[in-house]
Amino acid sequence: MKNLSFLFAVHNHQPVGNFDDVFDRAFEDCYRPFLKIVADYPFFKFALHFSGPLWDRMRIKEKECWALIERMAERGQVELLSGGYYEPILAVIPERDRIGQLRLMNDFLEQNFKRKPRGLWLTERVWEPHLPRTLAGQGIAYTLLDEEHFRMAGVENIHAHYITEDEGWPLHLFPIDKKLRYLIPFRPLEEVKAALEEIEAGGGAAILGDDGEKFGLWPGTKQWVYKEGWLRRFLEFVEREGIRTRTFSEYLDATPPAGRVYLPPASYEEMMEWVLEPREFEAFKALKSAAPAEARRFLRGGFFREFFIKYPEANHLHKRMLLVSSEVEKHPGAEEARRELFKGQCNDPYWHGVFGGLYLPHLRGAAYRHLIEAEKRLPLTRGWDQIDFDLDGRIDLIWRGAAFQLIVKPGWGGSLAECDFLPESRNLTDVLARRKESYHAFEQPASSGEEGASIHKLSRRIPPEAADLLRYDWHPRLSLLDHFLHPDTTLESFQRIDYGEQGNFVNQPYAWAIEGPAAVLSRRGSVWVGEDRVPVSVTKTITPGEGIIRIVYRVENLSGRTISVLFAPESNFALFPFEFEPAGGRAVFMNRLVWEASAPDALWHFPLRTLSQSESGYDIIHQGICLVPLWRLNLNAGDGATREITLKDGHGR
Amino acid sequence: MKNLSFLFAVHNHQPVGNFDDVFDRAFEDCYRPFLKIVADYPFFKFALHFSGPLWDRMRIKEKECWALIERMAERGQVELLSGGYYEPILAVIPERDRIGQLRLMNDFLEQNFKRKPRGLWLTERVWEPHLPRTLAGQGIAYTLLDEEHFRMAGVENIHAHYITEDEGWPLHLFPIDKKLRYLIPFRPLEEVKAALEEIEAGGGAAILGDDGEKFGLWPGTKQWVYKEGWLRRFLEFVEREGIRTRTFSEYLDATPPAGRVYLPPASYEEMMEWVLEPREFEAFKALKSAAPAEARRFLRGGFFREFFIKYPEANHLHKRMLLVSSEVEKHPGAEEARRELFKGQCNDPYWHGVFGGLYLPHLRGAAYRHLIEAEKRLPLTRGWDQIDFDLDGRIDLIWRGAAFQLIVKPGWGGSLAECDFLPESRNLTDVLARRKESYHAFEQPASSGEEGASIHKLSRRIPPEAADLLRYDWHPRLSLLDHFLHPDTTLESFQRIDYGEQGNFVNQPYAWAIEGPAAVLSRRGSVWVGEDRVPVSVTKTITPGEGIIRIVYRVENLSGRTISVLFAPESNFALFPFEFEPAGGRAVFMNRLVWEASAPDALWHFPLRTLSQSESGYDIIHQGICLVPLWRLNLNAGDGATREITLKDGHGR
Repeated sequence: MKNLSFLFAVHNHQPVGNFDDVFDRAFEDCYRPFLKIVADYPFFKFALHFSGPLWDRMRIKEKECWALIERMAERGQVELLSGGYYEPILAVIPERDRIGQLRLMNDFLEQNFKRKPRGLWLTERVWEPHLPRTLAGQGIAYTLLDEEHFRMAGVENIHAHYITEDEGWPLHLFPIDKKLRYLIPFRPLEEVKAALEEIEAGGGAAILGDDGEKFGLWPGTKQWVYKEGWLRRFLEFVEREGIRTRTFSEYLDATPPAGRVYLPPASYEEMMEWVLEPREFEAFKALKSAAPAEARRFLRGGFFREFFIKYPEANHLHKRMLLVSSEVEKHPGAEEARRELFKGQCNDPYWHGVFGGLYLPHLRGAAYRHLIEAEKRLPLTRGWDQIDFDLDGRIDLIWRGAAFQLIVKPGWGGSLAECDFLPESRNLTDVLARRKESYHAFEQPASSGEEGASIHKLSRRIPPEAADLLRYDWHPRLSLLDHFLHPDTTLESFQRIDYGEQGNFVNQPYAWAIEGPAAVLSRRGSVWVGEDRVPVSVTKTITPGEGIIRIVYRVENLSGRTISVLFAPESNFALFPFEFEPAGGRAVFMNRLVWEASAPDALWHFPLRTLSQSESGYDIIHQGICLVPLWRLNLNAGDGATREITLKDGHGR
Repeated sequence: MKNLSFLFAVHNHQPVGNFDDVFDRAFEDCYRPFLKIVADYPFFKFALHFSGPLWDRMRIKEKECWALIERMAERGQVELLSGGYYEPILAVIPERDRIGQLRLMNDFLEQNFKRKPRGLWLTERVWEPHLPRTLAGQGIAYTLLDEEHFRMAGVENIHAHYITEDEGWPLHLFPIDKKLRYLIPFRPLEEVKAALEEIEAGGGAAILGDDGEKFGLWPGTKQWVYKEGWLRRFLEFVEREGIRTRTFSEYLDATPPAGRVYLPPASYEEMMEWVLEPREFEAFKALKSAAPAEARRFLRGGFFREFFIKYPEANHLHKRMLLVSSEVEKHPGAEEARRELFKGQCNDPYWHGVFGGLYLPHLRGAAYRHLIEAEKRLPLTRGWDQIDFDLDGRIDLIWRGAAFQLIVKPGWGGSLAECDFLPESRNLTDVLARRKESYHAFEQPASSGEEGASIHKLSRRIPPEAADLLRYDWHPRLSLLDHFLHPDTTLESFQRIDYGEQGNFVNQPYAWAIEGPAAVLSRRGSVWVGEDRVPVSVTKTITPGEGIIRIVYRVENLSGRTISVLFAPESNFALFPFEFEPAGGRAVFMNRLVWEASAPDALWHFPLRTLSQSESGYDIIHQGICLVPLWRLNLNAGDGATREITLKDGHGR
């Protein structure tokens, strides 16, 4: 195959906040053996991308890998690719941060490997048409996208590169061959050979860019790629066949683009489906399978930003990040804060597909930790502030203190949407709700082949305990959600979402006022009492102080009759360890934080767990603890009752 | 219908460079009567957008309209909408120009009508997801988009407004009800009433924004809307029914958004189809009609930028505009040049749909005129420059002189892609090729109703002379296209594109060099001579000087035998009047520009005409003159021949 050019890019990434042992295993089973082997074949040119978290670790702990890359870079075997340093989705972070993250990576590569990068690995290949300006403005000449991007623009030949522009800034685009993406390194060489011969016969170049974790870290691939020798056999095959491997830059300098393209926002086909709600996903799948081949290009799933519609928790994190970014922008000298912000922009917890992503508390926790760390490095004003931080068209209340930081959403139940504990840089209320996912419709396990199987084909193992995880929450698991429950409601029925809400407070708008140190939230709503809808008001006064947050509830019967209601304001915490003292109406988190309700008639608590998909099958993940004090209130006409909840830093108690 | 809010925006626009009498008729038949009538009904609140070309004219010639708007603005009846002043497609002009055009309109409205605009009419509703940052940054709180935009994002309720953001900048979006768009003002009030009642029953707001030209300027509407009294009857109906008309701002201030959206790039449904090639359009239509309702949201046609793929001439204009913009950017004080640039960004000639747009030479001519005027106001360096101005990944050669300005494309036939004549600020080579359009597949005339019919339903009149306009060019009509023709080729067969190209020069890459004052373009290619492919080289030396451009052709026979070839370099000019002097091998344009070929064996010329769609049916448009000198060259082995073409400013000859 002497007429075939093979362009190959490997992308390696581990998220900010991933476990140490995952990093270790990734280097041990995957990155290091890969680099050692390709370094044995100096003729084999390729492009390589490591994300910032991996470079940071490599510099300290993985000197052998570093040295291998250095050597291959020196002899021109490897072309290093740029990217946003901490692997953010470029389209959804502010332009100033896009530029900052790109410069960080460009400078890092130039200083350490002596060459300005010309190519970029686009995080998750999330494309929007205005990116060329930013990228070309930072010296990037090309990036790789999925063939689906090109198909959507009616491009038929994906074995060539194209040129696009924004505002007159040009960018070269290489289509990633999906077929090769599923063959390499999963299938026997005969199949790879057949595919490459076909490309050569068509006069094109074979272009592949993919996750390096497929070479040792994905299930089964360590055995297949290294122990059974797929990679060495592949490299020897490439040499034997005389396939011309070239860096993308070499190819670019020798070959004019095959044409001009303008691509709509897109990513790889699977991601554009993951972003859909399950019901929509079904409709899309049906349409896709019914559509004739020539019309496939007109079918689009969602685009990345819609993850912020699908997952309120992803939206909260995203808007929180934008808030921190706008604060960092006001302090141009705050370089440490800026780096923390960049770490908090790492893409993984902002979405969910085949990897855990958003579902993984340690990744969300890392994002919040870095965002809070950024804030702690800025001279932010203490006290209450009013700002529509999440851009839903309704004012939110933010309180910044020494120990706590709160975000209250008057427009949505007067709820507590975030409670940060600053001494530990933690968002205590970072709890993910249970929601229907497309993959909850379980397939029969597929027969697994003997060879390394693509992750997309791994058999679906149904966990026996899955059934009770498939109850879906009707609201995000915020805190201070003001339920009125039917007297017959049990802990179990509440937990199963098998109960009737008697009031209209949980997600409804509250009036608000800042009164001295307190935010006062109130709503005149109604509660079903027997057959009647009775007017009731709820006022909650949130008074944060040094090391303590006090919430005083006042429930008033606005009707002309005596009523009995069961008031049950729900809170959700992502905190461990957890001790429960029901007698005192207390719970203690992290041996330090004391949550207390004033003399509840009962105190419910239960774990919130989700069932999600990951590269190895299914994960059952403990997301947090739901705490619900129950107060049975007997209120005469026009009368009210007062109850209290406190959250206190009991450090040294 | 006392519970119904009716939000109504009227958008009025005439392109930069449109004929004076069209402007006059638009005010006479449409804008003035509309304003006079609505001013009689002060209860009727609405939003109004005039584009810059109309404001510029109104200020001078249409004082009555101006006064009516002033009065309605003062009493809060009308809310004026902003926009890019000269009505550019915001997504495809540079950010600096977006901001410049928005500020121009914002300042104009604030100075003249005493209120900062909060709403924006988005030119042709061409949306891309990064626009909110720009718009919100200029104080814009909302815009209107088509319901299709929202459908694509899975939004079902289009009788409410939504909020979106980019980089943390929020923007409110109002969906335009497509049904109302087809009812108002075309259908009887009973039908309008039924539609509004349905919206009221669903608890929503009726939201409409549309072209004001439907009120008097579109065929049949003057009679229907004014003479037959549709508009007055409609306003009286609104009053009688107690429908609440409000400005968009009033509504916005009183009503929180129904939800958050992220919309993909889109425009109205029709435009996303117009951008498709005819073959694709067929596939798309078939898919659309076969798709079940719930899957319709996943179907996308093209997006606006793809007009630059479909029409090379639109692409040329767009990239030319970007070049001028980058020159203007280098000269921050050049305010006059900047305004000329902005005029040159007016959207109409950049695309084509149901209106003539790109097909109309006077609109393209106006765009080029303003771009050239901008350049004339900048201190640009004379002589040759090398730049990939159209961003196709290949270097172009630009020559700037006192009388002429040239753009040569070595990568594409060494052709002359643009020849500007500066004394008259004209692009002499602005000729549109004949190409297949979806609407060339003629439908049977539909029966026209008696009432004002929507333009989309107007009967398709098939011009009897259409047939010979439906021959399609295989290349854009650039100049210095180096044909070798079969000896039997006739003028008629050449004109009908019914001939065989014997050489491989027309659109193939040429080597190039700048040698002193000249650009030297050369290609070693081949020509079919009888049964044989014979190696031939063509060298063209383009020497521009003061008032004259000299092109010297050298054709060389690289073979070992004697050959006879018919060399026929084609040029195309958009110039009138035109005198033809075949005997002298000469043509004279505009009584001034003399084109001359050195002793051709024949000189062909023929008009280039296109068949295009417009609001009134079909237009046959004279696009330019094709000029082809024929040189029969008998070349011995290794021998060559030299021929010459000149273009001279014969002013005062």
